[in-house]
Amino acid sequence: MITEGRNISEVQSQLDPQALGQEMHALMAELYPICRSITGDGFRRTLERLRREIPLEVREVPSGTRVFDWTVPREWNIRDAYVKNSRGERLIDFQKHNLHVVSYSVPIHRKMPLGELKKHLHTLPDQPDLIPYRTSYYAENWGFCLSHRELLRMEEGEYEVEIDASLEDGHLTFGEYFVPGDTPEEILISCHACHPSLCNDNLSGVAVATYLAKHLAGAALRYSYRFLFIPGTIGSITWLSLNEERVSEIRHGLVLTCVGDRGGLTYKRSRRGDAEVDRAVQHVLEHSGERHEILAFSPYGYDERQYCSPAFNLAVGCLMRTPHGQFPEYHTSADNLDLVDPAKLADTVAKCLAIFSVLENNRAYLNRNPKCEPQLGRRGLYSAMGGGDVKQLELAMLWVLNLSDGSSKLLDIAERAGLGFDLIQRAADLLEQHDLLAEVPILSSSAEPEERVATWTKSKP
Amino acid sequence: MITEGRNISEVQSQLDPQALGQEMHALMAELYPICRSITGDGFRRTLERLRREIPLEVREVPSGTRVFDWTVPREWNIRDAYVKNSRGERLIDFQKHNLHVVSYSVPIHRKMPLGELKKHLHTLPDQPDLIPYRTSYYAENWGFCLSHRELLRMEEGEYEVEIDASLEDGHLTFGEYFVPGDTPEEILISCHACHPSLCNDNLSGVAVATYLAKHLAGAALRYSYRFLFIPGTIGSITWLSLNEERVSEIRHGLVLTCVGDRGGLTYKRSRRGDAEVDRAVQHVLEHSGERHEILAFSPYGYDERQYCSPAFNLAVGCLMRTPHGQFPEYHTSADNLDLVDPAKLADTVAKCLAIFSVLENNRAYLNRNPKCEPQLGRRGLYSAMGGGDVKQLELAMLWVLNLSDGSSKLLDIAERAGLGFDLIQRAADLLEQHDLLAEVPILSSSAEPEERVATWTKSKP
Amino acid sequence: MITEGRNISEVQSQLDPQALGQEMHALMAELYPICRSITGDGFRRTLERLRREIPLEVREVPSGTRVFDWTVPREWNIRDAYVKNSRGERLIDFQKHNLHVVSYSVPIHRKMPLGELKKHLHTLPDQPDLIPYRTSYYAENWGFCLSHRELLRMEEGEYEVEIDASLEDGHLTFGEYFVPGDTPEEILISCHACHPSLCNDNLSGVAVATYLAKHLAGAALRYSYRFLFIPGTIGSITWLSLNEERVSEIRHGLVLTCVGDRGGLTYKRSRRGDAEVDRAVQHVLEHSGERHEILAFSPYGYDERQYCSPAFNLAVGCLMRTPHGQFPEYHTSADNLDLVDPAKLADTVAKCLAIFSVLENNRAYLNRNPKCEPQLGRRGLYSAMGGGDVKQLELAMLWVLNLSDGSSKLLDIAERAGLGFDLIQRAADLLEQHDLLAEVPILSSSAEPEERVATWTKSKP
Repeated sequence: MITEGRNISEVQSQLDPQALGQEMHALMAELYPICRSITGDGFRRTLERLRREIPLEVREVPSGTRVFDWTVPREWNIRDAYVKNSRGERLIDFQKHNLHVVSYSVPIHRKMPLGELKKHLHTLPDQPDLIPYRTSYYAENWGFCLSHRELLRMEEGEYEVEIDASLEDGHLTFGEYFVPGDTPEEILISCHACHPSLCNDNLSGVAVATYLAKHLAGAALRYSYRFLFIPGTIGSITWLSLNEERVSEIRHGLVLTCVGDRGGLTYKRSRRGDAEVDRAVQHVLEHSGERHEILAFSPYGYDERQYCSPAFNLAVGCLMRTPHGQFPEYHTSADNLDLVDPAKLADTVAKCLAIFSVLENNRAYLNRNPKCEPQLGRRGLYSAMGGGDVKQLELAMLWVLNLSDGSSKLLDIAERAGLGFDLIQRAADLLEQHDLLAEVPILSSSAEPEERVATWTKSKP
Repeated sequence: MITEGRNISEVQSQLDPQALGQEMHALMAELYPICRSITGDGFRRTLERLRREIPLEVREVPSGTRVFDWTVPREWNIRDAYVKNSRGERLIDFQKHNLHVVSYSVPIHRKMPLGELKKHLHTLPDQPDLIPYRTSYYAENWGFCLSHRELLRMEEGEYEVEIDASLEDGHLTFGEYFVPGDTPEEILISCHACHPSLCNDNLSGVAVATYLAKHLAGAALRYSYRFLFIPGTIGSITWLSLNEERVSEIRHGLVLTCVGDRGGLTYKRSRRGDAEVDRAVQHVLEHSGERHEILAFSPYGYDERQYCSPAFNLAVGCLMRTPHGQFPEYHTSADNLDLVDPAKLADTVAKCLAIFSVLENNRAYLNRNPKCEPQLGRRGLYSAMGGGDVKQLELAMLWVLNLSDGSSKLLDIAERAGLGFDLIQRAADLLEQHDLLAEVPILSSSAEPEERVATWTKSKP
Repeated sequence: MITEGRNISEVQSQLDPQALGQEMHALMAELYPICRSITGDGFRRTLERLRREIPLEVREVPSGTRVFDWTVPREWNIRDAYVKNSRGERLIDFQKHNLHVVSYSVPIHRKMPLGELKKHLHTLPDQPDLIPYRTSYYAENWGFCLSHRELLRMEEGEYEVEIDASLEDGHLTFGEYFVPGDTPEEILISCHACHPSLCNDNLSGVAVATYLAKHLAGAALRYSYRFLFIPGTIGSITWLSLNEERVSEIRHGLVLTCVGDRGGLTYKRSRRGDAEVDRAVQHVLEHSGERHEILAFSPYGYDERQYCSPAFNLAVGCLMRTPHGQFPEYHTSADNLDLVDPAKLADTVAKCLAIFSVLENNRAYLNRNPKCEPQLGRRGLYSAMGGGDVKQLELAMLWVLNLSDGSSKLLDIAERAGLGFDLIQRAADLLEQHDLLAEVPILSSSAEPEERVATWTKSKP
């Protein structure tokens, strides 16, 4: 099946960054108030809102399901929570900010003196105006988060504590959207959507993934694209556990998070370190002329931890702007809608499309006239008047001809030439049109992960 | 056959740089006025003059001959050309400077107003006193080049334009000189000789190649040396097309151009990047203690473009002083005899001989006492009095002994030791004289190009 | 056999650096006055003193024994030596400093004028107060060393020269001590003990090797440790010649010398350059946070010259503080007990133990849950409260899990993670205790030297 529709270059050229940024920010504003966690109705409501943008499928996995070394946890839902002083004033109020409750807190309703309550209160003494974000998914506990200033104002005395929540067998919910391309080989785009009112770390990735999906749906694509909207860690583990046989189709992937703040783009390489996606991202960022940073892989971070676990070792990196833990608003109430810039959201979408464009077009060709240069001049491809400077497109054609011996793909050529991939691709297109190049069907170098999975699973019946 | 005569060290030590530089500059002065192009009598007259220095063979290839993707062009000869104003004054006069005519201009003789003439006039507004060099080899056209100041002085009115040239079936001419060595393995030295009155870009390479040939002829050489004096691009394409079966003998090669200006030496690596010649040149330049530059390969430049095309991929780099396009006189009337320094010409010859000396002597040896060091002292090779400093030659002997396990050639050892090749070679000679080393006949790593050609041509009958 | 006793971590933690430094310095003070040479009673007396610390075996090899390309020399012993002026004053007196006599001077007793005597006098004009150290092991000669100021004070006249020495068939003596471990695979520690009254270059290595042996004896060790106290050059050649069949058990090794001065540690890599010992030393020095230097291999230096000769190519580097020839006291009477700092001696012992600890513990493991991360939280290995920072030990566990796919040993992981080996090892121990890791028995990459020796010796009957 060859898809019809716009190719990726056309998708790129038709972006309206300003409108796009505003739409994405507006979507985030709608999602911001919802109290999400790794399970529960907040996650479901979030996916429902996204379904108005893209027809994603909602998956439900029952609590108790074994997923590798883990178990799908019980479902957590919360209706209300507060701490009242003896005068009945709600000093800490979930209705005012959903970060006030430690996520996955077990239900509680009783009175206690401040001394006992304090063991369950979390603050940030160094950032005394901010509410921290805390979770206790896998150990039964309860707690409240508040600003340090609020804590200091709390007087000795008896407090009424109420968390009206439920932690019961139910489901883990996630969203999945598959955009088919010409081949079953996939590019995976994964974002976590399990954080409550946090914008850069969570919703920015959700918004960028949603709009990438909107723009790619219906386009003429070489790769298929799989979008996952999942709870962090347990979501990727669950998906990998349910889809082990599909993993071998994943050729490239990006985890998206913290992509809306005003910092430059940061890319953390896959565990492989020099996978095609690692090189494509690096190329796009370097040729953007913008401030950026490339980080080595580390097994701490987001869901790339699971995609890059040794048995899978997928070519999945993580695209961010300012990395987690490096902006002061991280995991606090200050990670709000103001922290996220519509222009940066739109720019992230554009950069992702540029990365996908490299991957889509990174083909190998064979020079059909490998003995000396072909005479470009008589084909109108080279300046007839000699003695002056060479043009960039001519130089790009010389590079493509010189290196198209079957061992180099266009990205290899762009890297060695120090020229932008778009220019190299344009040169290759021109040369192919003039029968000077022939595309080489080469085996993807990414066939490896399948073999590795096979090795690890070979003891299975 | 073992050649007799001086070995390359003797050739090197017998150079008289000052006399050599003067002779080369005088040769260039004789060649400078000739109007060369990629074909024609100017090229033939140039070769005739060189034949008074070295017995090169003159080859003639008929117009229309197919050479790979190209066709040998018609032969161009020019007798006179001018632009006269209405008063009959030759405002632009080929007799004054042969750069005034675009090379390969078709004959023309008619009158036209300035407006029409201007479409055929080429100037350099940023260098208003210089005449540019322009060509139109492969698209029929005509034109004149002049200084921008001359153009500004031209008044409206009727001009008489005359180019008394012929563009007819004839021949492409080139010169070839083969200096046989002990083995059929070749070092290729190639220079283009197709530019009219241009000195650094053209004649400096011709002069250096000629004097290298003069000095190597009759010497005792391990390699054979092939010297080509060819028109740029079409010349190397023609030679490669006529000599495909010989290409596999080429082990190393240098394209020589722009080697007479006052800049430091610049070497552009072969497409392979780390071929033996690349490393030999780098070693010689680094150990010269002089300013120099090593550039990565790029498929734009001189005839290395053809030698390094993917089907040949020869180990041929390009030796220059200031690279083309990086000195302001490049491709202008200012690239004249003053730009070229006799001392720099002689130094280029000396450096080329030093490079060839590395290649000639880059052998592998086997340490015959590989278990611990041999006792150099009792052979008079090591200081009898201990406790003081080691001498450089002793250190070089220790390096040669330590690394001569069959996997390293002398250049590998020199590079790892950080010592000059000459010292390492002297140490190896001494050790061999004392039966401490035995030469290893190892297969050249350059056997590869033959295989590649075989691959590309395997569809031939 | 599994050894019992303290493991190497316990050995490390039980060091008392201050006491250790004082003991080592006191040992050096006892050894300092002895007139050692490459053979003779001075060497024997030195070993006898060491036998009060460790039960080393004393080997005696007869003069005339062929050892590879060398012959064990005659034994040299000296009783007295002087130069007297005409008034009978001992102007140069061996009894005052044993550096005054060129080592291996042949006996002489006669009178001669100053002019003739001067040919046998050695001074350091640039360091006029110091006596140089000179030897003439392999060429029969005699001589005296003195300060340049003393030389200048010598008046014309007749001098009586006496060297009461003997150079006769006897033995070459060396000491060897073997500390057995769980496997026959060895770590070699080699020091030269052939210098007379010189402290940093000679005795510091002897002292460090002795105390390393004292501390490792009786410990529970994976590797066996072989300690050699030998005369430089001829000693290692002799040992290798007598033990060719044992060489293949040597996995790692260190030559120790100049390890007591106040400079930072310097490590010269083995000929292999990236052997496990090279990487272990580099890791320990880099993570020490102290000033240090890593040098490339060179075939000039100490006995690593022989261990790294091409037929053996052992993974043996050289650990020093300030390298030979780079401190002004080198090979002079100023290399005395003041130059050596007890604290630096103790620190060298501690660093060597840290290096051995890396080698002892550098194992490969297989992640038993390679599909996604295992759930560390439910095993108490990961913080239950989410949202805050990761701890260093947690990060180390993630690295070990992520890279334990059978291809990486702990040192590989520590290097890639940029974390200290101890932390990585602690993480691996914890994970193994929780059945999350299984040790992989992998073939040592150091199997190579055996094969090489086999190749070189295959022509033997």
